[in-house]
Amino acid sequence: MGELRRDPVVGRWVIVETESPLRPENFEKEKHHWKGDGCPFCYGNEHQTPPEIEALRDPKTLPDTPGWQVRVVPNKFPALQIEGDIDRRGLGIYDMSNGVGAHEVIIQSPYHNKEIPDLLDVEVENIIKICCRRTEDLKKDRRFKYILLFKNYGPSAGASLAHPHIQLIALPMIPKNPAEEIQGALEYFEFRERCLFCDMLRQEKQEKTRVVVENKYFIAFCPFVSRFTFEVWIMPKIHNSFYCAVAKSSAEITDLAKILKEVLQRLRITLSDPAYNFIIHTSPVNQDEELAHYHWHIEIMPTLTRVAGFEWGTGFYIVSTPPELAAKYLREAQI
Amino acid sequence: MGELRRDPVVGRWVIVETESPLRPENFEKEKHHWKGDGCPFCYGNEHQTPPEIEALRDPKTLPDTPGWQVRVVPNKFPALQIEGDIDRRGLGIYDMSNGVGAHEVIIQSPYHNKEIPDLLDVEVENIIKICCRRTEDLKKDRRFKYILLFKNYGPSAGASLAHPHIQLIALPMIPKNPAEEIQGALEYFEFRERCLFCDMLRQEKQEKTRVVVENKYFIAFCPFVSRFTFEVWIMPKIHNSFYCAVAKSSAEITDLAKILKEVLQRLRITLSDPAYNFIIHTSPVNQDEELAHYHWHIEIMPTLTRVAGFEWGTGFYIVSTPPELAAKYLREAQI
Repeated sequence: MGELRRDPVVGRWVIVETESPLRPENFEKEKHHWKGDGCPFCYGNEHQTPPEIEALRDPKTLPDTPGWQVRVVPNKFPALQIEGDIDRRGLGIYDMSNGVGAHEVIIQSPYHNKEIPDLLDVEVENIIKICCRRTEDLKKDRRFKYILLFKNYGPSAGASLAHPHIQLIALPMIPKNPAEEIQGALEYFEFRERCLFCDMLRQEKQEKTRVVVENKYFIAFCPFVSRFTFEVWIMPKIHNSFYCAVAKSSAEITDLAKILKEVLQRLRITLSDPAYNFIIHTSPVNQDEELAHYHWHIEIMPTLTRVAGFEWGTGFYIVSTPPELAAKYLREAQI
Repeated sequence: MGELRRDPVVGRWVIVETESPLRPENFEKEKHHWKGDGCPFCYGNEHQTPPEIEALRDPKTLPDTPGWQVRVVPNKFPALQIEGDIDRRGLGIYDMSNGVGAHEVIIQSPYHNKEIPDLLDVEVENIIKICCRRTEDLKKDRRFKYILLFKNYGPSAGASLAHPHIQLIALPMIPKNPAEEIQGALEYFEFRERCLFCDMLRQEKQEKTRVVVENKYFIAFCPFVSRFTFEVWIMPKIHNSFYCAVAKSSAEITDLAKILKEVLQRLRITLSDPAYNFIIHTSPVNQDEELAHYHWHIEIMPTLTRVAGFEWGTGFYIVSTPPELAAKYLREAQI
């Protein structure tokens, strides 16, 4: 019989398949078919992207030429556009607004075939630093209330370009999912006067069964109430609600780079290079970013099973491999 | 520039691509590859399913033999199991329960290759009647609080068997998505003393741009705040919160069968037989089912674009074809 588990943050229920859990080899393998050559994110093709916003470059090299290690450009097909004031209005019972926001692409490295696990630690650190710098820069724009960093890896996770990249979207409102998480965590805090995520971290460290890997400043674990099979969260051990706080300490950046790299490597080996999404959940910007009740974290969600009518209709999720077993497989991967 | 729209029910925002909307031919075509022969839902293979729960049958035919028109069986691989009491317990900060519930399959017809648009009206009516009968029967079980009917069509929508079928899951708690919808509608009702969905219906009838088709008792429209590209809702024109109410009137069943069939036909023609999910959102059972503030409806969600990091991270959705344009394409389909 399966087991029902209730998420302590937002109250979502999931069904965990405990009787006949799926093993890593049971999932359909992702075929990474990519279209064409002439990748716009490769060295020498800098003119194919909109002009760069920022880059980590060799001294004396010019913008939009080779010589960069990490490069940030506007998304050529942005979901939202940077110009204009926010114009909210009603239409009968409906509400609408023009689509103001920023949509940027962080090109992780010049290497078309090197993903995060293939990079040097220092190269991953540079990506994290640039992500924080872009966030700090964009939050000066008072129109923005939430900045999301996310990555789509593999076509079935929604990636449309093969060259390794991360995306950033700045939004003029706090979106529903982080708003619910923050609200749920606030209710817990008001009741217990403790951060829910710090409590989660304590319990995970104690039970150990769901921990994948940890180092001095970070822990990676398969959440008790995973939404996706083989989901992994990376969480800072020191309470902090805003992820850019990590940029203040080079030791913390190093640990974050190491653990992110190792988790992605373990997922790749265990699940034969699965497609995945990751997102960074953090506190909103342009209001108090330091929240006692919220705790930033990375959610890594492999694309192993289909989200179907049941999930869309209920908000329930079915997890085919219990998180305890997923963590065991990931811990035992030979990296 | 895209447009942001806010759902009046649950407060979800979506981004509607208004500048360069996708046309029906721009979506990747679904390849309906199905595994093997010996379909367990076909005539003559009744022994391959668990014993039937109910069926519409020719007189004098026996259960689990041919001679049926619609057949209901337990899901062979149920997400939840029917036996046992609900046992909720805590585990540190987490909550859990055993997985009690019902998971049934409604085999729509003996025809392996006939989907809803290919059936006679009366055959679709029979499917609806059986769905209502199963719901009425299951709600006698006081353990259940919510009964969801849903359909996954096509592998990319999560279907694992080709033979046309609908699924039913009875749950021991009201899941998050309908709970949020009902709560959002209640807040609107308390403020305005009107049903939000009745207001929506009135506005859609007046504006006409998003209406796909209507008849005396039902209307089908692309919601102003669609979550999915080419999403269509079917809603009863007479206020009712519980979908089994439809079974009380043969004229209403006829109209529902007609409109469901026509909408699925228009989607098939317009989008070259896309994969889709549909779900029925209704009031919970084993409490007052007649709610003045809630209005049952069917949500049909074609699987045309990938849900990726941005959607998972925010709860925002990106709709590549504005609902007004999608409705126009669907209206103009030659059926």
